[in-house]
Amino acid sequence: MFASAEQTHKVDKTTFKTEEAKLREALLDVQFDLVGKKPFAVLILLAGIDGAGKSEVLARLNEWLDPRHLHTMAFDARDEAERERPPLWRYWINLPPKGTIGIFLGSWYRDALEEHLFGDSSSDRLERDLAAMTRLETMLADEGVLLIKLWLHLSRAEQEKRLADIKKLPGGGRHIIEYRRIGKHYQQAMAAIENAVRLTSTGEAPWVVVPSADPAYRDLMVGQTILAAMQKRLASDRPAPTVPAAPVVGAKPDRKTALDAVDLTLSLGGADYKEKLASHQRRLAGLTDSKRFRDIALVVTFEGHDAAGKGGSIRRVTRALDPRRFKVHSIAAPSHEERAHPYLWRFWRHIPRKGNVAIFDRTWYGRVLVERVEGFCSEAEWLRAYSEINDFEQQLTDSGVIVVKFWLAISKDEQLRRFQERENTPYKRHKITDEDWRNREKWDDYASAVGDMIDRTGTDYAPWTLVASEDKRHARVMIVKTLCERLEAAL
Amino acid sequence: MFASAEQTHKVDKTTFKTEEAKLREALLDVQFDLVGKKPFAVLILLAGIDGAGKSEVLARLNEWLDPRHLHTMAFDARDEAERERPPLWRYWINLPPKGTIGIFLGSWYRDALEEHLFGDSSSDRLERDLAAMTRLETMLADEGVLLIKLWLHLSRAEQEKRLADIKKLPGGGRHIIEYRRIGKHYQQAMAAIENAVRLTSTGEAPWVVVPSADPAYRDLMVGQTILAAMQKRLASDRPAPTVPAAPVVGAKPDRKTALDAVDLTLSLGGADYKEKLASHQRRLAGLTDSKRFRDIALVVTFEGHDAAGKGGSIRRVTRALDPRRFKVHSIAAPSHEERAHPYLWRFWRHIPRKGNVAIFDRTWYGRVLVERVEGFCSEAEWLRAYSEINDFEQQLTDSGVIVVKFWLAISKDEQLRRFQERENTPYKRHKITDEDWRNREKWDDYASAVGDMIDRTGTDYAPWTLVASEDKRHARVMIVKTLCERLEAAL
Repeated sequence: MFASAEQTHKVDKTTFKTEEAKLREALLDVQFDLVGKKPFAVLILLAGIDGAGKSEVLARLNEWLDPRHLHTMAFDARDEAERERPPLWRYWINLPPKGTIGIFLGSWYRDALEEHLFGDSSSDRLERDLAAMTRLETMLADEGVLLIKLWLHLSRAEQEKRLADIKKLPGGGRHIIEYRRIGKHYQQAMAAIENAVRLTSTGEAPWVVVPSADPAYRDLMVGQTILAAMQKRLASDRPAPTVPAAPVVGAKPDRKTALDAVDLTLSLGGADYKEKLASHQRRLAGLTDSKRFRDIALVVTFEGHDAAGKGGSIRRVTRALDPRRFKVHSIAAPSHEERAHPYLWRFWRHIPRKGNVAIFDRTWYGRVLVERVEGFCSEAEWLRAYSEINDFEQQLTDSGVIVVKFWLAISKDEQLRRFQERENTPYKRHKITDEDWRNREKWDDYASAVGDMIDRTGTDYAPWTLVASEDKRHARVMIVKTLCERLEAAL
Repeated sequence: MFASAEQTHKVDKTTFKTEEAKLREALLDVQFDLVGKKPFAVLILLAGIDGAGKSEVLARLNEWLDPRHLHTMAFDARDEAERERPPLWRYWINLPPKGTIGIFLGSWYRDALEEHLFGDSSSDRLERDLAAMTRLETMLADEGVLLIKLWLHLSRAEQEKRLADIKKLPGGGRHIIEYRRIGKHYQQAMAAIENAVRLTSTGEAPWVVVPSADPAYRDLMVGQTILAAMQKRLASDRPAPTVPAAPVVGAKPDRKTALDAVDLTLSLGGADYKEKLASHQRRLAGLTDSKRFRDIALVVTFEGHDAAGKGGSIRRVTRALDPRRFKVHSIAAPSHEERAHPYLWRFWRHIPRKGNVAIFDRTWYGRVLVERVEGFCSEAEWLRAYSEINDFEQQLTDSGVIVVKFWLAISKDEQLRRFQERENTPYKRHKITDEDWRNREKWDDYASAVGDMIDRTGTDYAPWTLVASEDKRHARVMIVKTLCERLEAAL
């Protein structure tokens, strides 16, 4: 969920000044439109880890918006009057009325996560609580409330630096309770938090993760997210999911995602390649032939830029497998029969039995990639697909299927080189079509979609492996090796 | 959930013949419309307890509909191929394509309930599983599948009779596994089942409970429910919740609900009344003044026909309470401020602190009563309100609030008598308005709405108490007594 936010996102001082001026004006415009017409209420949940700057953002919003129509509520540990009522009571009675914007600092999520991390709520209990919250938010959305859920994120290193700075201030350490309590269990705690954020990212009210290392970037992104959501909702005649998944920040859009962290210079020499590939293939053959493999199954999915080398990589994998026990499924545009069913149906049909391997050359992620970018499905459809896919993969994992997901990354230049090579090589010419060239023109849109996909579907049970594929040999070895490692961990 | 279904519902032979002929023709009409246009798929979940006649209904539907476009699947214990895949796999691969009707005998609910009743799945785990099912069904609905969920119900006595009959048939006992296993834990098991059915009755796909003691009534109701849902969906241009909450059966509508079981002849003599009332009031005073009451709170809700005696009853209750620690909230049409918030907001504001009592003269149930009947909210809105209200009351209960809900029932004749009396008594004249007379004209619509309300919001944690109020004295004593009993059970 947080992979893209951990990339470096920065806005320089001059850009900030220019953008801030434009943003303030636009924000006041939509706010007065809201106040005048009172068509709905806006509820902003401002959440995130200690030190990410929740209070700073709050101060900024109070500066940018007209505070007369802005209701800010900070929820800390429950006071006596609150403890004597149901946990949600304090949020309910403070809901903003139509025509106003309410900002909740701390929310029902904080309560549930605290209970889980520091209290005695089990994972099942936490999931039950999160389901209740999803129902609450669905109700609020149905009742016309525009929910904007902002999660302010810092990497661990950034957080430590920030907290050290805060401690130096007079009285600074006061609020840093959460962090001290999480302490050395940081890794586990963050996994639980990430899971909760992912589970509650619904189509009606998805979380927007705000990279918060650079305060200027953070504040602009918060402001622009609120602006975009309100503009969109004011323009539509009926309530619909309205929070953009990836707002644009600054004069030039910063579309940095987890994909930008892939080191495309990685490569492997010829002799080294042959030896390593053969050794990992032997390892993979041994693992999938083992008796213990009969109790599990393996699903391998390949996605990547056009010409990134999916086909060649799949052949290197299947060479190591027993031909009676694997199947490669090439996913093209859906058939007539497939279109007559919910979109996940065609994939459910190919779930392998125990002891078997299913390899998908393109996958269910088409919904949030090509279908999103090309407009083959509505925004509501691809927004809800993230959690539908997470549910799907959770079910596979729960029943003993190992799900390994590869994204094969190449640069735009390398793609051009390969396209041209295909056109100039007679036996490769069938591999390149006009559609490939058209897709290439939408490179940036695809990159945004891939970033969102990795953030919203990279789970602990089915993580993404991003494969630097500029050098095919490096990619192939990495893929076979990753499969071995995942199987070894599972067996 | 099953209270109304346990009333006697019957259709005589002649009516059945006439209705069946009409129904068959209409069903074939909508089916061919569906087959021709293929706008969506229909999925019917046929569920219910052993002996209720699931197989008989299936046979009937195969007779009434064109079996070429009907896919029937019976799901029993999982076979080997199914055990080697995720639990939902077998349902997914058997989803009906657009233009067809699929009937599932046994479904994901059966799996989850079996695991809970006979396996080792905890209540938290069951609720988590049910939440996953709700997500699955929401997805299917979003993908355009028309879901019709039918629960065939028998009372315990009816079930025992039916099973005894079946056992007499050659090979009859074969399928009666579920019942034998539930055995003496029937009561607990039914509570879990009822809870599951209630929790998964969402706005998109509510359960329809089918009284199954009379096969003719049962089959007509099933057929008419399917017919109504398909007609409605074929007529609308976009997917919307489509299952009617209370289908009409037979030439004359049978609107029998739990309300019809209230014995309105109950009454209490004058001397007896005074003594009993005083004694229960003393008991209630003692309970609410006790130290242990400081750890809980009490919410009492009054709903009922106009002139059923809510005000008088409330005064008999408050007389027993410490005036510093109770409050009566009279709920009229929502104010401007209240309309600017989600409808439950105005009630959340009045949740009492520990040691206090809140009495509501009319309540949040207005949403599924007056707002439904008068069309002040949409069908989608009141359909989803049942589970929203259940969630709300669950939150109250979980935090130690005792929720006692009264429905004050009188006959239509008695209401007329009281209306006339009010008009003829000068100091009572303000109590009767034109609106009361208008509401009276919709008596039957209100009765249906009340029946649905009792079925769908009568929970184990916040049950309805139906109070025979034809005789005011009987009603008042029963109310104060019920409060004492609920408090004694809690303290």
